[in-house]
Amino acid sequence: MVPIYRWRFTPCNKNGSMRQFIVVSHTATITPDFSLNDLPGSGGRMDILCRCVGASLLTSHALRNNVRVYLLLQNKISIRIESSETRYLHPDERCIAALIKKALEKIPEIVGQIELESTPGIYISKRDLKSLLNSVDPSGTFIHLDERGLSSQTFVFPPEPIFILSDHQNFSPSELDILNAYTQTTINLGPVSLHADQSIIIAHNLLDVQNI
Amino acid sequence: MVPIYRWRFTPCNKNGSMRQFIVVSHTATITPDFSLNDLPGSGGRMDILCRCVGASLLTSHALRNNVRVYLLLQNKISIRIESSETRYLHPDERCIAALIKKALEKIPEIVGQIELESTPGIYISKRDLKSLLNSVDPSGTFIHLDERGLSSQTFVFPPEPIFILSDHQNFSPSELDILNAYTQTTINLGPVSLHADQSIIIAHNLLDVQNI
Repeated sequence: MVPIYRWRFTPCNKNGSMRQFIVVSHTATITPDFSLNDLPGSGGRMDILCRCVGASLLTSHALRNNVRVYLLLQNKISIRIESSETRYLHPDERCIAALIKKALEKIPEIVGQIELESTPGIYISKRDLKSLLNSVDPSGTFIHLDERGLSSQTFVFPPEPIFILSDHQNFSPSELDILNAYTQTTINLGPVSLHADQSIIIAHNLLDVQNI
Repeated sequence: MVPIYRWRFTPCNKNGSMRQFIVVSHTATITPDFSLNDLPGSGGRMDILCRCVGASLLTSHALRNNVRVYLLLQNKISIRIESSETRYLHPDERCIAALIKKALEKIPEIVGQIELESTPGIYISKRDLKSLLNSVDPSGTFIHLDERGLSSQTFVFPPEPIFILSDHQNFSPSELDILNAYTQTTINLGPVSLHADQSIIIAHNLLDVQNI
């Protein structure tokens, strides 16, 4: 019997503030015909995105409340996931990949930049990095997670952080040009270069400990 | 093309000190006939162990050096993984599960408490919690990760920490009795109850930042 991560929420964000994560994937497929048995290969490192979704949304036997995740695939497709609306989310990569697959199946129905809901709390739209950043709630503070940034140890996090991370490939110069127009701050989380999902987990922990 | 996490090491442990993680699974199957397509169900939450292995060993495009992971399955089977010897390790759960499956296939060949190597750097033996703890290098310091422990924020980590974590189920009273004979310290990593793999990532980060 697999527990269902469905109803219980971890009230971890002070005053109901929103934590947002934008994960930019350069390689993940935007067609739904990838194999759930080969997420790294046929999915174009879809496994990275699955771990990022789990890292963003899940705690022990619960979902974090007030977390929003954006996955940007190949600078063409954006998938938005709302923790407070999500259902049927288990922590294993395959389960999360199946939900992403269902979202990608909706692409032929998308008209313009209108979002479609594929399963509860998961929305897909056609966007590039710039239009995605433009669509994000402007009350938050963009924070670029990067090894060359300021140390997170002395950083006081804003109440509505929006973290921007790349997958296993670095941001390109043209992506950085776009990001620099939005991000007020670049921070690093420690001396070791980590996976995107690992960075998300540490960022959550820093906010939890700072009670933000 | 999937990158191979094989040759590059992250020299993250000061003076080559060893970081060890013991993950106790109460439900993971000890037969190799589980399906790689259903790690949570037929694998008995094998997905948790896979994420713990990835969290312990992997950094961005590299393996951590000097990390040892023990997986204890159903208080019967111990799988030891040495980061410095491991090969063919990709970060996706399915790849790691396939390595665990290969280890479990060796069980019929095990004689007494002698370890068998299934693939490079992965060793399997028949042990319960007590004999596993007895087999661990005694120069390290056992640290039980638990929500009711001291705050990690003010904790100065020892140079050779051995972290002990449970899976999605809490330690039983009899397990706690055994643990208490070995663990000098119980610490918590923050106010939110987390998955085992998330705790490992945060523990690594705290050690990285403290340069231990």
